[in-house]
Amino acid sequence: MKRTVREIAEFVQAQVIGDSTVEVTGIASVESAGTGDLVFVEEERNLDAALASHAAAVISGEFGSRKAYPKPLLIGAQPRLAFAQAAKLFRGGSAPQAGTHPGAIVPASARVARDATIEDGVTLGERVEVGGGSQIGPRTVVGADVSIGRDCRVYPNVTIYPGVRVGNRVIIHAGAVLGSDGFGYVRDNTTGRYEKFPQVGRLEIEDDVEIGANSTIDRGALEVTRIGRGTKIDNLVHIGHNCRIGEDVVIAAQTGLSGSIVIENNVVLGGQVGIGEHARIEEGVMLGGQGGVLPKKILRGKGVVFWGTPASPVRPYLKQLAALARLAKKN
Amino acid sequence: MKRTVREIAEFVQAQVIGDSTVEVTGIASVESAGTGDLVFVEEERNLDAALASHAAAVISGEFGSRKAYPKPLLIGAQPRLAFAQAAKLFRGGSAPQAGTHPGAIVPASARVARDATIEDGVTLGERVEVGGGSQIGPRTVVGADVSIGRDCRVYPNVTIYPGVRVGNRVIIHAGAVLGSDGFGYVRDNTTGRYEKFPQVGRLEIEDDVEIGANSTIDRGALEVTRIGRGTKIDNLVHIGHNCRIGEDVVIAAQTGLSGSIVIENNVVLGGQVGIGEHARIEEGVMLGGQGGVLPKKILRGKGVVFWGTPASPVRPYLKQLAALARLAKKN
Amino acid sequence: MKRTVREIAEFVQAQVIGDSTVEVTGIASVESAGTGDLVFVEEERNLDAALASHAAAVISGEFGSRKAYPKPLLIGAQPRLAFAQAAKLFRGGSAPQAGTHPGAIVPASARVARDATIEDGVTLGERVEVGGGSQIGPRTVVGADVSIGRDCRVYPNVTIYPGVRVGNRVIIHAGAVLGSDGFGYVRDNTTGRYEKFPQVGRLEIEDDVEIGANSTIDRGALEVTRIGRGTKIDNLVHIGHNCRIGEDVVIAAQTGLSGSIVIENNVVLGGQVGIGEHARIEEGVMLGGQGGVLPKKILRGKGVVFWGTPASPVRPYLKQLAALARLAKKN
Repeated sequence: MKRTVREIAEFVQAQVIGDSTVEVTGIASVESAGTGDLVFVEEERNLDAALASHAAAVISGEFGSRKAYPKPLLIGAQPRLAFAQAAKLFRGGSAPQAGTHPGAIVPASARVARDATIEDGVTLGERVEVGGGSQIGPRTVVGADVSIGRDCRVYPNVTIYPGVRVGNRVIIHAGAVLGSDGFGYVRDNTTGRYEKFPQVGRLEIEDDVEIGANSTIDRGALEVTRIGRGTKIDNLVHIGHNCRIGEDVVIAAQTGLSGSIVIENNVVLGGQVGIGEHARIEEGVMLGGQGGVLPKKILRGKGVVFWGTPASPVRPYLKQLAALARLAKKN
Repeated sequence: MKRTVREIAEFVQAQVIGDSTVEVTGIASVESAGTGDLVFVEEERNLDAALASHAAAVISGEFGSRKAYPKPLLIGAQPRLAFAQAAKLFRGGSAPQAGTHPGAIVPASARVARDATIEDGVTLGERVEVGGGSQIGPRTVVGADVSIGRDCRVYPNVTIYPGVRVGNRVIIHAGAVLGSDGFGYVRDNTTGRYEKFPQVGRLEIEDDVEIGANSTIDRGALEVTRIGRGTKIDNLVHIGHNCRIGEDVVIAAQTGLSGSIVIENNVVLGGQVGIGEHARIEEGVMLGGQGGVLPKKILRGKGVVFWGTPASPVRPYLKQLAALARLAKKN
Repeated sequence: MKRTVREIAEFVQAQVIGDSTVEVTGIASVESAGTGDLVFVEEERNLDAALASHAAAVISGEFGSRKAYPKPLLIGAQPRLAFAQAAKLFRGGSAPQAGTHPGAIVPASARVARDATIEDGVTLGERVEVGGGSQIGPRTVVGADVSIGRDCRVYPNVTIYPGVRVGNRVIIHAGAVLGSDGFGYVRDNTTGRYEKFPQVGRLEIEDDVEIGANSTIDRGALEVTRIGRGTKIDNLVHIGHNCRIGEDVVIAAQTGLSGSIVIENNVVLGGQVGIGEHARIEEGVMLGGQGGVLPKKILRGKGVVFWGTPASPVRPYLKQLAALARLAKKN
């Protein structure tokens, strides 16, 4: 793939300084850039290194403008964002042809869009729907009555339990499990044994969600588990039954949410965070790595950072850590 | 599926107040109940909401009895348990027909019961046994000499290593890995390199166990890893080699047990708990989420709650947290 | 398989005391040894139990030598290591025949060594290379342009994304995901939405690495993620994009590394450890279970043990825990 600097600048809405006919063939970091690559710099102090690299062109912030540069610059207010957008123009050509591989199992009742791709060894259940432009990777198993929207990318070895609804442009990485039974039992007082509580609710994944490798998201027990639009979930994350996750939430790797938790919009959860059932994390809260939230607890405050177990605002928490260190030294 | 209130009451051994000929077609929560649904209430203050809902009938505790109700009531000492039992009468009709899918690989030496279900893309190894009524989901791989009992449900994309023994009525969720090698190495003093210690022991899963999605349970190194009858394991749990887990143990998501740990009967482990090797958690102990237990440590006391890392009884632990908060405020 | 004590002694370079013609048919622990088994003891006080067991022969340390023993002894400086090496002579005979199963998908552009084994349901992408003696288990999916070296063992249901390079003698357990996209987004200041940052770098796994079941290792964003020679990774571990892990590193179960972390040679990470981005763990550091390292932090010191969150050297950390316990008692 070749794109001129002008084409890229139009796509990402940047202003060009220099030769806009220069051709770009890929993207790279400044350190690894080869001839033809596009790179980006976010801070002025890194601009000289970018200009000295092998790169063909540089996406840059509005650092004030010199008279001349040895390479074309694409100037914009958000250079990292522009680079991420430009990268879409250079996506690898390994996408398989649309269509259904003969080694896939697609029942007559399934409705697969003509330009969707169903790779080999995929099993679709009865009445599954797959929207246009979506690609289902090898060996993925999709249960009955699942609906997958447009332009989704489901990687290999994913399991989607029956009835799950997946929106548009959703990315599901390898090994993820969606819609499995929640963890709910009733102990019989007379025998002491656990009886399985029904786990027959739904799971809804809204548009533009990304779900990491080997993450698990349980269906609702009787109600719904919902992942809101634009939310990004890293690898090995667990989300229990009946959780309701808002929009544009970020959940880092190995974080675990037990049941019936509400996460409001724009929350950021660090890695290995654990949250007890029926807790509520309100809009815009940030929770540091390994933080723990007790059941039914509410965390509140846009942009407020919480940390520790039980999680508290980070400032008093750090004060506690410091006080403890002083105390230990005195003894 | 339709059941009369009388049929349900007989199945769960409840006493009916009202019209026992009313027909029920499904189960639901009070909030989401539609016409025909069965609901349950555990506390008297929720009874009016249930009676006002669209539900056809209500499972209820023994709250004292009024003269008349607008719906039939099924009264019992454990309403949540009765509801869980009643739910079995309404299980979805999507179970595939018994038999072996032509796309499964079943060697001549395998012994599969006539009414077992082997779905497409399943690979059974040599001499595998699958008992009556068991269902093996698509793309699951079962190694040689594995034995699976009666009425088990193995979901898709599960891997069972050779020689694992699975009891009756065991549920294994998608992506789980059973019988993988434990994590054991010997460092060579002369080269500094790690040599793999043999991981050739067994894994035994007893009756009525449930194992969550993407959980991993290692085989013994030279001995056995055992999961006792009725134990329930959530998603993304890790159980290392040589662990011996008792009966009716509950292990929440993302908890990890390193090697050679003993967990006695009726223990409850919260989520993200970590336990060091050769530790012993004695009968009836409860360990709070994110708690950590040092290697070789013993936790003891029926119904005693432990928390923190290193785990201690929760009362003095909370006292420590409070003392630290006071100290930080003074400084 | 049968081996004489002499054959074993030559293989592990031990000195025999007693009858070197005795035949050994397997390995076991002292507790479970049957007739024909080889066992080992590391401490003199356990020698009598080994001699009293059903075992055929005993690998033992240099404990001083008595006149006579009831069984042949194989004496060496590192008995556990010798036992681990000897175990290789008795590996189970269930390895499938070399060759490609007719149910595997192998494109014409793939280069598979004649004595490699590709089991049923495997999907190899275009231009995949598999070296001699390597075995790819059922239902594993290998993306385009992946290269797998000699004598590797890839278990079932593994997913390897395109372009990943795997060295020689690498073991990859079931359900592992290699080369998935890293977790990187750019927030658009104007819309508040997250744009995916390109995750197009590489993943390189060097020789003699072992990767546990359901672990996930992300490819680099623009650069490389690298796992050094001889490093051992347990189950459910997460390694983020751009991490560089040294040689002979040990990483226990459920540990998570976010992005761009450097782990130098001979580091040992306990279970459930969490490390923030751009941190560096220097040569020979040991980090206790559940320890947490802040972003950009550096831990230093061969053989120094760190613990806690934020991780500090274990001695002052334990002093802090003790001081806190005393303080709580006083109150």
